[in-house]
Amino acid sequence: TTITLSLDEHNRLLSKHQNILPTQNFITVYLAILRHILREEDEPTPTLFTEMDTLQYEGGEMEWKESARWVKFEEKVEEGGERWSKPHVSTLSLHSLFELRTCLQTGCVLLDLEGYSLPQIVDDIIEKQVQEGLIAPEIREKISFVLLRKHRHQTKKPIHRSLADIGKSSPSNHSPSPSPRSGSGFHRSTEDLRARESGSLSKLRESGLLCLPPSIDLSTTTSGSLEFLISLKNKFMKKIPRDAEASNVLIGEVDFLDKPFVAFVRLAQAATLGGLTEVPVPTRFLFVLLGPDGKTKSYNEIGRAMATLMVDDLFSDVAYKARDREDLIAGIDEFLDEVIVLPPGEWDPKIRIEPPKKLPSAEMRKSVFSLNELGQPNGNAGGGAASAEDEEMPAPHELGEELKFTGRFCGGLWLDIKRKVPWFLSDFYEGFHIQSISAVLFIYLGCITNAITFGGLLGDATDNYQGVMESFLGTALAGTVFCLFGGQPLIILTGHPIRLWVGLHSCLQCLILVATDASYIIKYMTRFTEEGFSSLISFIFISDALKKMMSIFNYYPINPDFNPDYITSYRCDCQAPDQVSPLALNVSSPLGLENISDYSMFNFSSLDWNQLSKKECLRFGGSLVGKSCKYVPDLAMLSFILFFGTYSMTISLKKFKASRYFPTKCRTLLADFSIIVSILVFCALDYVMSLDTPKLHVPTQIKPTRPDRGWIVMPFGKNPWWMCLASFVPALLVTILIFMDQQITAVIMNRKENKLKKGCGYHLDLFWVGILMAVCSFMGLPWYVAATVISIAHIDSLKMESESSAPGEQPQFLGVREQRLTGILVFVLTGVSVFLAPILQYIPMPVLYGVFLYMGVASLHGIQFWERMKLFLMPAKHQPDFVFLRHVPLRRVHLFTLVQITCLAVLWILKSTVAAIIFPVMILGLMVVRKTLDLVFSQHDLAWLDDILPDKDKKKKEDEKKKKEKKKAKSEEHNNSDEEVRTTTIRCVRC
Amino acid sequence: TTITLSLDEHNRLLSKHQNILPTQNFITVYLAILRHILREEDEPTPTLFTEMDTLQYEGGEMEWKESARWVKFEEKVEEGGERWSKPHVSTLSLHSLFELRTCLQTGCVLLDLEGYSLPQIVDDIIEKQVQEGLIAPEIREKISFVLLRKHRHQTKKPIHRSLADIGKSSPSNHSPSPSPRSGSGFHRSTEDLRARESGSLSKLRESGLLCLPPSIDLSTTTSGSLEFLISLKNKFMKKIPRDAEASNVLIGEVDFLDKPFVAFVRLAQAATLGGLTEVPVPTRFLFVLLGPDGKTKSYNEIGRAMATLMVDDLFSDVAYKARDREDLIAGIDEFLDEVIVLPPGEWDPKIRIEPPKKLPSAEMRKSVFSLNELGQPNGNAGGGAASAEDEEMPAPHELGEELKFTGRFCGGLWLDIKRKVPWFLSDFYEGFHIQSISAVLFIYLGCITNAITFGGLLGDATDNYQGVMESFLGTALAGTVFCLFGGQPLIILTGHPIRLWVGLHSCLQCLILVATDASYIIKYMTRFTEEGFSSLISFIFISDALKKMMSIFNYYPINPDFNPDYITSYRCDCQAPDQVSPLALNVSSPLGLENISDYSMFNFSSLDWNQLSKKECLRFGGSLVGKSCKYVPDLAMLSFILFFGTYSMTISLKKFKASRYFPTKCRTLLADFSIIVSILVFCALDYVMSLDTPKLHVPTQIKPTRPDRGWIVMPFGKNPWWMCLASFVPALLVTILIFMDQQITAVIMNRKENKLKKGCGYHLDLFWVGILMAVCSFMGLPWYVAATVISIAHIDSLKMESESSAPGEQPQFLGVREQRLTGILVFVLTGVSVFLAPILQYIPMPVLYGVFLYMGVASLHGIQFWERMKLFLMPAKHQPDFVFLRHVPLRRVHLFTLVQITCLAVLWILKSTVAAIIFPVMILGLMVVRKTLDLVFSQHDLAWLDDILPDKDKKKKEDEKKKKEKKKAKSEEHNNSDEEVRTTTIRCVRC
Repeated sequence: TTITLSLDEHNRLLSKHQNILPTQNFITVYLAILRHILREEDEPTPTLFTEMDTLQYEGGEMEWKESARWVKFEEKVEEGGERWSKPHVSTLSLHSLFELRTCLQTGCVLLDLEGYSLPQIVDDIIEKQVQEGLIAPEIREKISFVLLRKHRHQTKKPIHRSLADIGKSSPSNHSPSPSPRSGSGFHRSTEDLRARESGSLSKLRESGLLCLPPSIDLSTTTSGSLEFLISLKNKFMKKIPRDAEASNVLIGEVDFLDKPFVAFVRLAQAATLGGLTEVPVPTRFLFVLLGPDGKTKSYNEIGRAMATLMVDDLFSDVAYKARDREDLIAGIDEFLDEVIVLPPGEWDPKIRIEPPKKLPSAEMRKSVFSLNELGQPNGNAGGGAASAEDEEMPAPHELGEELKFTGRFCGGLWLDIKRKVPWFLSDFYEGFHIQSISAVLFIYLGCITNAITFGGLLGDATDNYQGVMESFLGTALAGTVFCLFGGQPLIILTGHPIRLWVGLHSCLQCLILVATDASYIIKYMTRFTEEGFSSLISFIFISDALKKMMSIFNYYPINPDFNPDYITSYRCDCQAPDQVSPLALNVSSPLGLENISDYSMFNFSSLDWNQLSKKECLRFGGSLVGKSCKYVPDLAMLSFILFFGTYSMTISLKKFKASRYFPTKCRTLLADFSIIVSILVFCALDYVMSLDTPKLHVPTQIKPTRPDRGWIVMPFGKNPWWMCLASFVPALLVTILIFMDQQITAVIMNRKENKLKKGCGYHLDLFWVGILMAVCSFMGLPWYVAATVISIAHIDSLKMESESSAPGEQPQFLGVREQRLTGILVFVLTGVSVFLAPILQYIPMPVLYGVFLYMGVASLHGIQFWERMKLFLMPAKHQPDFVFLRHVPLRRVHLFTLVQITCLAVLWILKSTVAAIIFPVMILGLMVVRKTLDLVFSQHDLAWLDDILPDKDKKKKEDEKKKKEKKKAKSEEHNNSDEEVRTTTIRCVRC
Repeated sequence: TTITLSLDEHNRLLSKHQNILPTQNFITVYLAILRHILREEDEPTPTLFTEMDTLQYEGGEMEWKESARWVKFEEKVEEGGERWSKPHVSTLSLHSLFELRTCLQTGCVLLDLEGYSLPQIVDDIIEKQVQEGLIAPEIREKISFVLLRKHRHQTKKPIHRSLADIGKSSPSNHSPSPSPRSGSGFHRSTEDLRARESGSLSKLRESGLLCLPPSIDLSTTTSGSLEFLISLKNKFMKKIPRDAEASNVLIGEVDFLDKPFVAFVRLAQAATLGGLTEVPVPTRFLFVLLGPDGKTKSYNEIGRAMATLMVDDLFSDVAYKARDREDLIAGIDEFLDEVIVLPPGEWDPKIRIEPPKKLPSAEMRKSVFSLNELGQPNGNAGGGAASAEDEEMPAPHELGEELKFTGRFCGGLWLDIKRKVPWFLSDFYEGFHIQSISAVLFIYLGCITNAITFGGLLGDATDNYQGVMESFLGTALAGTVFCLFGGQPLIILTGHPIRLWVGLHSCLQCLILVATDASYIIKYMTRFTEEGFSSLISFIFISDALKKMMSIFNYYPINPDFNPDYITSYRCDCQAPDQVSPLALNVSSPLGLENISDYSMFNFSSLDWNQLSKKECLRFGGSLVGKSCKYVPDLAMLSFILFFGTYSMTISLKKFKASRYFPTKCRTLLADFSIIVSILVFCALDYVMSLDTPKLHVPTQIKPTRPDRGWIVMPFGKNPWWMCLASFVPALLVTILIFMDQQITAVIMNRKENKLKKGCGYHLDLFWVGILMAVCSFMGLPWYVAATVISIAHIDSLKMESESSAPGEQPQFLGVREQRLTGILVFVLTGVSVFLAPILQYIPMPVLYGVFLYMGVASLHGIQFWERMKLFLMPAKHQPDFVFLRHVPLRRVHLFTLVQITCLAVLWILKSTVAAIIFPVMILGLMVVRKTLDLVFSQHDLAWLDDILPDKDKKKKEDEKKKKEKKKAKSEEHNNSDEEVRTTTIRCVRC
């Protein structure tokens, strides 16, 4: 622990920055040191919270005032604004880092000091300095006095107090010319409060301190106000990890010193040193820099550099484990080596850099550094360095062991069950969260809208053998069972029309697929197929929503020639028919069987035709005559407003999450409930307008739609026996469709991006789908299979983000609330919808169509295919920095996208024509197209744009292995030649 | 020029980073050098374009391939993507900078080399190196061979060619495993093309080059394809300043060297060295780094560091003026000193940093550096360093000499005229720009909407003595004259109702105000008054737009009980009155005087009442009976859709400017025409719906609205003579209102942020307003005065941004197209609107109300008061980094905002009650309120939130002066003491 600046030191510092040039062999010195330190113990060191206090002169008195703090990023006290700045990346000057390095070289370093109170620690520091001859013994007491001055922290004030202050503070408090040292009402009142709390005792002690007995424990003076501070800082404490320790940086300018007084202290045990730190976190490190007058800026910069180093993952490790001064210096050198430099002409140092979204982890940095390879800055203009390119290959397509082919009977299913059972309990209690309410309501509305629309169509197609009621009951039954026992309970099921025998065959086929682990072929479903399918479904969803909206315009036609002045000419009269045939009556009104008896007694000639409503008039065979008969005013327009309003309000509320207004919690809640809020708002609007818009009408009684059938369908009905066998063929198509629908949706749900933790169960899913198919078939209910878009909406509405992290750190996406509760609730609610009818009837259909439009659009979000489609409209220079664009030429990207678009267009056309029946087979076709793409695109391009097919993947891995081996051999060679070069160059310079 | 690494060098480098510590005295060495260099000549040096080429091995052949380029920011060739990356800030490693420094210390530096061709230059470099013993003479030819390899540039390919390529490239072109060195179709075809162009001759030469005669001029080989390249690079050339010169950085790895070969060359004259540079810009600097195998990454990083240095404003200056190696090293040291350092744990080096919006200018950096004060990084946690705080005071409120009180009769007016005359011609030709079309149409529509609404109200208020026609003519007349001769022709005038004598008095009063330079009192109008007034006007605008929209709902009521089934019951019949009085007829229909004669011949009893329209029915005294009489369907809803649609589409199109889609030009055009596009779209929608929405109906004939008056009003009419004198009193109120309206609007227009260059003319403005008042009074037209919101919209629609700047540089706001043409055109168009009636009648009023809403909202944009109001809703940590928030405590900011809100609320209430007449005086009241704020807020706070009032300002300046003098004295003292400290500390360490 000498403090002279040796020339060797200089050499070492400089030499390590000369990698390609002669003195290269020195670089290993500090790396060896660091490796030694960091390998000693592997237990993780605590996180450090750093506070920097500067010495202030307030009305002739000195005190330490908090000026910045670091949890991970820097927060500065805005002197004028009296508040914390936004957390930002600490931008340092190279200068201050070098100065800090010299400070540590020349100053006093005390490692593992036994310290329990600040005065004792200060004593020890000063003693050491005097011993080493760094300071004259005369100023000992002066320094001690300065270091024991009281600490004032920047505290966040409750709003009601600061409002009360507004009245208080008058200009007399402010000196007319701006003086940064003048105290403002804010601090004073905090001060007052603290003074009142600690009472006159502390005042006495303070005056006692003026007499300079350094043994007086200042910590007790401020400990009275500690609890008060804790309550204020409650919120901030949440941002600091539990095991955190503090490091305190004290920077000051005094007039009695003629050279800097520097001390770096590490305590043997972290200790709470009274009011030293703003939060009740024990202090482990202390850095003191007192210097002669006139260099405040420099001192502050050095302090910031120290504080930034202390919160650096690697340096803090070094600081904890350092054995001597040399180790600390090596730590700084390592830090300097990794530092990122911005040229002064391309960046304004006044800009506060917002914390990045992602940071390289300390582990990565450590490993990089232990490999003795420097991190490569982004701008690397390097040409074709093969090694760099290899590293940058995307992670291979992983589907995990769920899709392994076991080769055993029901092997996959058995594994699925084994995997899911341990989670079964947590699947319920993890559902209790406010977010679940929103998810349940949202998905419930989606499901019943679907059930009603689908049920209506189904009823028309099946002569009401299956209608709205069946649709509701089926959804409830199948959904509940699936969510209770399915492999991926986040999947929401939707209906398909059925025939009993086809259903039974399909069920059997599904079970066979389950038993034979057939789902493993999903491995061949790459991003190409997956995104193609889900985009198609999304487009269908969007187009359906729009079509339904447009149908309202047809249903409620607008009179384009309406002129307010001719209001007198618009009317619609019911004219009596010339001859009334009672027979025609019965036929034309199948729906009003009960009522007809009331009217049939009427004498038709005496009927007041003018008093009849439109329906009545038509029923009695009258005809409507008049200009306004065809038209319905306002309803279409209002429907459009409701539709578009719901959609855009939902979008806006979702976006509002990223706005600056209101606290984060409010915004998160609002974003989570955006759909519910939008629906409520537009239902209210509809209610206020009190127009007769089409409403959501659910059945009010549980009974089969067609009154002439029961709940059980007999297996052998009117159909001939051979139909039972022949239905095998259509069943095959159905099986393919159901298999594809179900498994692609499952793949989408299980995407790595969703960070699911409970594993998936493709076989189990299919098993239940098959079983439910049979059950539904017997009950005459529709079949149920995963609904892609609604399932995506379900998962979206259950996403979790990390809440408390270091100030400035971006909240991280943590995963999805994986549980069965929301799903079950949705379907139970669907089942009891008949009782909810009185509430549901206030919801206008256009609002629900708006929700559908939103679901369709939202499910396109984050699909790479969609991002690539947008690229067509962007000039190259404006394109986002997608990683695949860095590696694949744009025209190849476009070609790939074009292929996908073509496929989807073909599928779309197929779907809309009679060929719809082979639609499921065509989806399989997508996979074939993907296979042929192997011939058009290089595996390199496909690895970036898509995933590599499993077999190819294997091959590639083997290739890579071979390559690596080669490289290894080569690099060894290299190292040798490196060694040679080094020695020769050294020789060359020395001669 | 020795190349040994002396220890002195080491010391110097290190020592300059020890500011607060002993060896500080060395720091002055390089500063002295730099000051000497940069002061020698003051002529500016050309801008440098830097290209970095790396040596590549392509199928056994070597060639130089462009890997990055710098205009100001770095653009990298994305190897895989075969395209330019987005421009970004070059992030360097400290390492590479130190290595570069050593390279320049040890390598060969050739300054002012006479060079005309690459081979000759290469020869000279090698000769020099051999002379200095840096390389063995044997490898001379090998190096020359490498350095003369052909250069391949990353060219942007026209889209049709790249599309054609899509078909061509098949996977056979790609090796199955990714190999970064494998050529792709892209480069090959460029290659082919160039080969075809330069013909077989070049091939011969190339093979000739293999025999290594270094005198062969490679430049002719590639000059053939130069023109081709130029055409391709046309677009990129625009980004490079005209006087630019190039610096080329060549980085390569070769196997025959055992230590790096480094050369830095500055040519005496910039020369075009064939295909060396991708653009036809002459080369001035050349940096070559060839090194032994295995360190490609390091070499590339050094090359990037060199390139970044070359585009640094300060270093490029040094490079141009350097006298020797030492100067260059000093330049690097200076660069290192200014460098901004990001800690590795808080930033991911892989993130490409987008260029900042604003950069510190080179001049500022130079001046900072010549003052020997280091730039202070943003995070400065420094406490109350008084000097820092002083520097950060906002620039004082400047109004320029336009508002000086001359003390002479018409002195200000005369100065105004003198100031404006030189610009008169340019005021016309500068108006020819496509942007003007949009501005004219937009403002024109605003003006006529205003004229019609205002004219209608006016007509009601004045018994049609002044009506829509007068409003149109007056707008046209006053506007044209004002725009032709006014002081600030960007101001748009709007009407006020008049009386002849009041007008004459007001005119006289205005002229007196002009003659006495009374406008100078505007100096006392600070941001507080200005923003208060303009916000108030904006709020009125917004509320008017909404009110007008809501009135449509009243005008076309919706039938809330409509039920489509009861369509038969909705009708509206005209019922004949019991007794028809022909007298009543005439009175109730003043508008249909011509038609009445047609009907008066009818026999009333035989009239078919059912055939009458609503108006006719009412005219003939019939009454309307029926459920649908009160209601008008669809119109209100459609109007709302048109209103809201126009508004939100305009907002979206404006925002679209910042999106990624389409080239910048398209987006700028679309943003400029956003209002016109929105209007057209919703007019089209309205046309398609073909409903009878309220339309814009302008008069079709030029004649006074009231047929019984002429165009000239006689001064002595029916009124008693004393009225002529008594009207002095109301005239005074009018004068105040007009004065305030006019001058505040002018102040808003002349804001510093608008960067107007042609000066303002407050006196001239008021002069013309006065004159026009008299003219309008005599003609019975309304008076005209500046319309705040429309004027702001006018200036907004004429904003200019810089087009061609270095890639990545943000387009700068350059100012406003200051000219008279758009204004004149608007008013001429208004005058001829009568002829445009057939076109204008297609524009629905709700669309125009939407435009008004947009104008009102847009004029709030950028008003600090509005920004401060938003702060109420934001938690402190989310608030934007406004500069005033850094200096004024949040609660003071809130208090200030609350005062403003209260003032506006009072004004709003006044405006809506009978007290409206003293409204103009109340605006003067705003200035009084501001004056009293001096008692509540400190001048420091006010300087940030508002401006300081002129007198206070003067006082403050004096204060500052005094302070500065004091400080100066003190700092001199300081320097001395500094000197002392320094010597003592040096002594201390040396002992």
